[in-house]
Amino acid sequence: MSEFGLIEHIARLFVDIDHRGWETIGDDCTLLPIGGDEALVVTTDMLVEDVHFVREATSAEELGRKALAVNLSDVAAMGLPAVATLLSVALPSNAGEEWAREFIKGYHTLSKEQGVALVGGDTTASKDKIVINVVAVGRGPLSNVKRRSAAKIGDAIYVGGQLGASALGLKDILAGEYDTPNAARHRLPVAQSQEGVWLGGRAEVHAMMDLSDGLASDLCHILHASHCAAEIFVENIPAVEGDVESAVCGGEDYKLLFTVDADNTECFESDFEAQFGFRPYLIGQIVESAKSEIIWTEQGRRVNPQWHGFTHF
Amino acid sequence: MSEFGLIEHIARLFVDIDHRGWETIGDDCTLLPIGGDEALVVTTDMLVEDVHFVREATSAEELGRKALAVNLSDVAAMGLPAVATLLSVALPSNAGEEWAREFIKGYHTLSKEQGVALVGGDTTASKDKIVINVVAVGRGPLSNVKRRSAAKIGDAIYVGGQLGASALGLKDILAGEYDTPNAARHRLPVAQSQEGVWLGGRAEVHAMMDLSDGLASDLCHILHASHCAAEIFVENIPAVEGDVESAVCGGEDYKLLFTVDADNTECFESDFEAQFGFRPYLIGQIVESAKSEIIWTEQGRRVNPQWHGFTHF
Repeated sequence: MSEFGLIEHIARLFVDIDHRGWETIGDDCTLLPIGGDEALVVTTDMLVEDVHFVREATSAEELGRKALAVNLSDVAAMGLPAVATLLSVALPSNAGEEWAREFIKGYHTLSKEQGVALVGGDTTASKDKIVINVVAVGRGPLSNVKRRSAAKIGDAIYVGGQLGASALGLKDILAGEYDTPNAARHRLPVAQSQEGVWLGGRAEVHAMMDLSDGLASDLCHILHASHCAAEIFVENIPAVEGDVESAVCGGEDYKLLFTVDADNTECFESDFEAQFGFRPYLIGQIVESAKSEIIWTEQGRRVNPQWHGFTHF
Repeated sequence: MSEFGLIEHIARLFVDIDHRGWETIGDDCTLLPIGGDEALVVTTDMLVEDVHFVREATSAEELGRKALAVNLSDVAAMGLPAVATLLSVALPSNAGEEWAREFIKGYHTLSKEQGVALVGGDTTASKDKIVINVVAVGRGPLSNVKRRSAAKIGDAIYVGGQLGASALGLKDILAGEYDTPNAARHRLPVAQSQEGVWLGGRAEVHAMMDLSDGLASDLCHILHASHCAAEIFVENIPAVEGDVESAVCGGEDYKLLFTVDADNTECFESDFEAQFGFRPYLIGQIVESAKSEIIWTEQGRRVNPQWHGFTHF
């Protein structure tokens, strides 16, 4: 059973239990309206040694930052600011006090930079591998929440930064080169938290998510949820080192992917640039189709690359 | 560094970040007031194969129930009903689709019995051991929330059920006897969810927590938080099979431990009995002391057993 097969099995099984006000609609976070125009969003992510990281290639401090960053990215993708996290850590006896202190140091540094409180968790032993589970909670206006299901026919499709650095960096690390700029992006991904909150406040932004498994895989979630297709202009994809395949198929870039009302793109792009100092990358448009597919084009002509995203198992 | 040493290190490090309205005061759950007289409580617990369970001794379905039950117990200890959970599962290749489906079946059965929604989570691969992380969320009146810090001098101390079954059951399992009644209690602990919500609504109930590490260890959390000591009447401890040491030192009983205004115990006990069909067990009283210690007495005379609770690492 694939990762998504198991998730679908679980979703089908639990339809007979009332959701108690929670919206669990396949977004980066689950959503809980808490009265007035206020909402909480909650996400959780588990990192397992030798699956998501290799102890020799990642310092404990870096891993502390990364474990938090990937969850902050999911909260940013909903359009709300992160306010709090819970952290569970299972430590084998060969990862002792020093490892734990360094990990917590990295986690704390990013928490402080982002003003995110640590409000709970669990510490326990493990037989041999380190396991980390982070829960992140965002809080803000319900009307700012962005859903994957909100893309509309004609919307412009944007990404919030260059893609492929993490995949290229992983290649460097596997080749034993730990200190390249791309390796640093893989080891220390940065969540687009400020961008996410700003985009949450813009009514012309419709659907949003973060890119964790690669554009070729992740964009399909928006297309399925919004019942539409996408045309992607391959020549517009902001690929690090011009490596389009890594940009499209590589995981862990943690850039925001979002759709914008086609009538407002000029004003939107200049407001975004005024805020963040760079223009978001226009990579395509939402199109009508019975099939939730990505249509790749180059200079207006359809191409058929065999691009797939990254899956965890 | 011990489990509690690491938690204290983390707590000291994070004092420089604003808590954003969350109360993280060393209770079974962290607390978030969300407006009016409403609050959320959140708890998280990680279960690691060969530390918290052995695959050969626990069926996947049982483990699904247990992973949820221990978190429901933490929510019950706050005096609120559980409403939702998030579930993260890391599966090695030798725990395949059948294991995952059986685990989810057990988790779903208890979720449905308790009306608790599954609203999010993560599924991923693991190198060799199964790891489960559950987050449980409770929601209800802020004024019903019970804290460890609320015990008062003179309070009567109660436990909500018999103690020691889980520790005795673990001994049976380690001796290869998987099917004894105590082994069943170890494999399938039951959270006192209904009792917790009812106790939350009673103003004469002051401090409350659940017994996960044993009375000798857990009671100290109430004593530290409430700046007091406790006299425990050893002859009143409701020990399964009369084994007081297992009752006091054994973990994973998941019975509620709570203190009650001494002026109201008779009415409280009969109302509890009318509701649940049995009397709660009066085991001691809160006493004044500069030292947060447990004073064990038998027939009014002090005894000095070397009893300690269970720690995870």
